[in-house]
Amino acid sequence: MVFNMITSLTNPKIKRLIQLKNKARLRNREGVFIVEGSRMFLELPKEETAELYVTEAFLHLIEDKKRLTEQLELFQDQYEVVSEDVFARIADTVTPQGVLAVVKQKKYDAVELLSGQTARKQSPPLLLMIEDLQDPGNLGTMFRTAEAAGVSGIIMSRETVDIYNPKAVRSTMGSVFRVPFLYTDSLTEIIEDMRRRDIVVYAAALHHSLNYTEADYQRGCAILIGNEGKGLRRETVEAATRAVSIPMQGKVESLNASVSAAVLLYEAARQRGL
Amino acid sequence: MVFNMITSLTNPKIKRLIQLKNKARLRNREGVFIVEGSRMFLELPKEETAELYVTEAFLHLIEDKKRLTEQLELFQDQYEVVSEDVFARIADTVTPQGVLAVVKQKKYDAVELLSGQTARKQSPPLLLMIEDLQDPGNLGTMFRTAEAAGVSGIIMSRETVDIYNPKAVRSTMGSVFRVPFLYTDSLTEIIEDMRRRDIVVYAAALHHSLNYTEADYQRGCAILIGNEGKGLRRETVEAATRAVSIPMQGKVESLNASVSAAVLLYEAARQRGL
Repeated sequence: MVFNMITSLTNPKIKRLIQLKNKARLRNREGVFIVEGSRMFLELPKEETAELYVTEAFLHLIEDKKRLTEQLELFQDQYEVVSEDVFARIADTVTPQGVLAVVKQKKYDAVELLSGQTARKQSPPLLLMIEDLQDPGNLGTMFRTAEAAGVSGIIMSRETVDIYNPKAVRSTMGSVFRVPFLYTDSLTEIIEDMRRRDIVVYAAALHHSLNYTEADYQRGCAILIGNEGKGLRRETVEAATRAVSIPMQGKVESLNASVSAAVLLYEAARQRGL
Repeated sequence: MVFNMITSLTNPKIKRLIQLKNKARLRNREGVFIVEGSRMFLELPKEETAELYVTEAFLHLIEDKKRLTEQLELFQDQYEVVSEDVFARIADTVTPQGVLAVVKQKKYDAVELLSGQTARKQSPPLLLMIEDLQDPGNLGTMFRTAEAAGVSGIIMSRETVDIYNPKAVRSTMGSVFRVPFLYTDSLTEIIEDMRRRDIVVYAAALHHSLNYTEADYQRGCAILIGNEGKGLRRETVEAATRAVSIPMQGKVESLNASVSAAVLLYEAARQRGL
């Protein structure tokens, strides 16, 4: 039985949720982000979840779905029920699934991340660096692939799209909760720092560079991926240890950015015997 | 100077273009598809292009862009100018670039495709098979990656999204013009045919199967990828020669479908020494 269903769009909580969905600045000021959909709900870390909103239809729907019911039980009565109309406004998707959470942003320590303390035991660090990527779907997909390939951390230029953008969050399929990451004002400074730590930085380039299969990824290394249309800035490629490229047959001029990242990261995983 | 700019949405050509954009059945009946945007315009094969539409803004914009101007010169006066308002309706994108073509569909010969006659000289066939993929962006990205990895042909189940869907076409970045492909009513029949031709069929599965790096892709082979959410049908996996899987670290349950295809295809390319 639902006693206090939120039905008004002028409810202050609802007004704030709509703003959190749309405004990166507000998300960062409050240190939270929005997570939507039943697939992502299953991945929610309880201790990092600040608020949870569901519709009555969602509560009904999950009755015969064991994993969803068990996950909701973790939250006991710490969720609010909102009307379908209200949910349609706070949701980012066209056909919302009736569940949405406000989750605390995590702050990762740059030194830990760079020194490889986030790497799996006995593995040298494997980092993914991203410069000025614009598509939230590509960024989320890279997070998902990176976790699967055993990446110890992701470092992004400040101009990269916000990983807390609702579409980016969904595309991670939960990896945003688990892969350490940070944004930096200067990728080149980070690259110099890495090189001092004996981490090799491989920049994904298009031509006139080492075939990516000939590079050594068994040592501590970072893979550097650029913007979808423009690739990497020249000064970033120059700061890296080496440029590597993925050979392409036919008349293909470049690969999709998240595909390039996947091919390079899985070559690293292959060499590491994962 | 433009004499006959199309400015009316009731113009029969425009009404037909809008229908071609939205209706796969009409595209297939007429044997054409729509190609949009300046990037795709550069890839247009002249001999396969039936109609070309541009805006005045596009003609103005390309004046100082050499490759675009040269490409337009191929079409001499065989294009029509339409008003911005009209273009906004025939275009599929939110911020259209003012150039759109009607291109003839190609029909590829199934026997040629299966027998590897479309493969690069002296290479055994490398085929990509796709079952029931739903996202047009994923499908287009797979075409692009497949061409780059040296795939000789793509075979799709009838329930796979239409490669002539405007978003799928754009995501191919031109590979739709170059990679031989066909749709089939029965993937399992094709798989049986392949196996008779001594082509090994590797089905991408999630668990309890051969690590994908341990499979042999130097011989004639096909890589089989399933639907985004559900993967492959059981009977399709059973028809294949072997199931292979991509190892995943962390808590990742699956990779994005176009990422999986890329990792498998580039392992094949690596083994083939491309």
